[in-house]
Amino acid sequence: MFDGTVDVDRMQRRITELGTIGETDDGGVTCPAYSERENEAFEYLLGEIPETYDVRTDRMGNAFATPDPDAERSLYMGSHLDTVRNGGRYDGRLGVVAALEAMQAIEESDEEPAITPTLAVFRAEETARFNVGLIGSRGALGLLEQPHLEATDADGVSLAEAMGTLGFQPPELGTPTIVTDRVAGFVELHIEQGPILDTADVPVGIVTEIRGILRDRVTVRGLPNHSGATPMKQRRDAVAGAADMVDAVETIGTDASEAGDVVATVGYIDVPDASANKISGEATFPIDVRSVDAAYRTEVDERIRERLRSIADRRELDLEIGVMERIDPVVLDGDLVEELAAAAEATETEHRRMASGGGHDAMNFVEIGKPAGMVFTACDRGLSHNPEEFVEPEAMEAGARTLAGTLLGYRSE
Amino acid sequence: MFDGTVDVDRMQRRITELGTIGETDDGGVTCPAYSERENEAFEYLLGEIPETYDVRTDRMGNAFATPDPDAERSLYMGSHLDTVRNGGRYDGRLGVVAALEAMQAIEESDEEPAITPTLAVFRAEETARFNVGLIGSRGALGLLEQPHLEATDADGVSLAEAMGTLGFQPPELGTPTIVTDRVAGFVELHIEQGPILDTADVPVGIVTEIRGILRDRVTVRGLPNHSGATPMKQRRDAVAGAADMVDAVETIGTDASEAGDVVATVGYIDVPDASANKISGEATFPIDVRSVDAAYRTEVDERIRERLRSIADRRELDLEIGVMERIDPVVLDGDLVEELAAAAEATETEHRRMASGGGHDAMNFVEIGKPAGMVFTACDRGLSHNPEEFVEPEAMEAGARTLAGTLLGYRSE
Repeated sequence: MFDGTVDVDRMQRRITELGTIGETDDGGVTCPAYSERENEAFEYLLGEIPETYDVRTDRMGNAFATPDPDAERSLYMGSHLDTVRNGGRYDGRLGVVAALEAMQAIEESDEEPAITPTLAVFRAEETARFNVGLIGSRGALGLLEQPHLEATDADGVSLAEAMGTLGFQPPELGTPTIVTDRVAGFVELHIEQGPILDTADVPVGIVTEIRGILRDRVTVRGLPNHSGATPMKQRRDAVAGAADMVDAVETIGTDASEAGDVVATVGYIDVPDASANKISGEATFPIDVRSVDAAYRTEVDERIRERLRSIADRRELDLEIGVMERIDPVVLDGDLVEELAAAAEATETEHRRMASGGGHDAMNFVEIGKPAGMVFTACDRGLSHNPEEFVEPEAMEAGARTLAGTLLGYRSE
Repeated sequence: MFDGTVDVDRMQRRITELGTIGETDDGGVTCPAYSERENEAFEYLLGEIPETYDVRTDRMGNAFATPDPDAERSLYMGSHLDTVRNGGRYDGRLGVVAALEAMQAIEESDEEPAITPTLAVFRAEETARFNVGLIGSRGALGLLEQPHLEATDADGVSLAEAMGTLGFQPPELGTPTIVTDRVAGFVELHIEQGPILDTADVPVGIVTEIRGILRDRVTVRGLPNHSGATPMKQRRDAVAGAADMVDAVETIGTDASEAGDVVATVGYIDVPDASANKISGEATFPIDVRSVDAAYRTEVDERIRERLRSIADRRELDLEIGVMERIDPVVLDGDLVEELAAAAEATETEHRRMASGGGHDAMNFVEIGKPAGMVFTACDRGLSHNPEEFVEPEAMEAGARTLAGTLLGYRSE
């Protein structure tokens, strides 16, 4: 009989071993979407799956593993293996490792799950390489669109090219790579990536909604000129203008976060013809605005754009603002939220309900009308996308136990 | 007899032909210090030098050409061929082309110069590649220091490595590559790189002093974290902090430029682990502060540093400020300024005396105690370090004529 225990050592070993692939000098991981390293991580993970499981890799390079491929309905569980540059060892990976652990822990007991599980391991969830995210699960569920395939990385390599180099091939647009009728639902465990659970000392969160993402790309153009010979008042400095705008994004975001749910971030400023002795003529930067409330998010974005336009006018700079990505906020399936909460209660796992700040593969299941749920685990100081990302063994255990409990107690149609 | 005319077509042809080496899509030039392209530019230029001249290339790759290598004293004239990324076709090149033109124009007349000229073509004047400049002339005059050789480009290639790859070898530190006793003085023609002459519609400037450069390197460190899940008020965002600081540099620089001679510039912000969905943990940027008044420059730099420290404190960011380069302001040789002004008058060339905003190879001649002078030509809208850099034929002619007049009328010891 399954006594509620999962093998934390096995989980930790897998997290550690995955973390050696693309390990960085300061102990982080760089495992970009559709890179040789992501391939290595997949190979490693597939090597850990019990031989009795049926394992399939789709045209996107996603992997699916189930003890019973003939089951008509299955609860899919999993996450992704890619990371941001110099990211952490738990983001995505813990969701895959915990789902596999939940499946194995039940198999190794004499209990039967209430529904057949399928481990789902997705490619290319992170936005880091191609500036678009959730790629693998989009492809699996028939949500891939032409602009995704044309998105390029910093070296100008398109997503389609990068996939082709590794021997993968995008499916016909609009066509899923998996039999979606078999999908009863999707549960994704993920680190919180924020400080709420850690601060409250609660190991597990049951996610009720996910903040939507609106990502703009801003290009500022001025007049490149010599830094030493151009009087301060005759400059049209693109970098100074961009800095002014980044400041405005932060100020507007902070003010707006007091009145409603929103965050706004600029991750970097890119200067194409950069030189220490040159007034730069061009600078570009992304703006990432997120909220659980789509209307409020749009309102804040509009406030930001207005301020940017007025800064550009005052500085005589040309301004271009384009939308790179727009993902609506998502309300997760109410029944599945109850299933997950019941599983946490049944296994005596302390938990709380909460919103997710990050976007996740689970959103694509909601998009195609499937019930999706998420389990968060506390992470140290809320750090993620960071070499110092860390999850306490107790939180890993509590998360995997909640997944196992869900498989055992699953009652939904 | 030399009738005051120089061959503008020949100058324009040379400028145009040099401009095809490393030409960019928008008509600019990328010809980095110690690159294959800089080599090509040197090869082209050496092919234009009359066969009767004695041509020598030193260990730094600088070239020197003179009709009379046995002359005990010679007036050196020239500039450099390298450019910033996507720079213009006149910066440096016009100084070389105009000096050669002045020498040839006199030779082709039946006049004799009052002093033997030597064309000096220097390597690696621009700071763009290695973040240190005036390298070729430093090496020629025995001013190269170990840190210059260890300076690296964006790919981590050191100056010494880049030189070695092209077959050059730095001289023993402190040892000039040329016989400095032969150098009676150095005259450099250069585009103004500012809007003063163009605005006043004056073709030629005689430079009286050169702004010194103080270049800081600032590193800001915060806490990398997830852009969607980290509340606005719990962030330690390095990019937002850097933007705030860039804004401060501009504000302090602008205010200070009303009270004295100073400019302050940030050319770019570099974010090592950049991602659109990540609060960045680190950002670095250069600050370039210039003035003809060293004390005022230091005072302004100290004001900037103080403000940066207070921004870092308020934002709980770690701050590191290091000096990358410090070049003192330079007062050019009074006698040579008079020689140049007299030559402009003798050739009926409209001119005015002025300060230089940019640093130039001429500074290194002052450093070793040689008389140095500079002739500026007006450039369109003051644009330089820019594909749109342009010099009217009339200004090119006026500049070369002034150099020729200097060789003919030279009277100094």
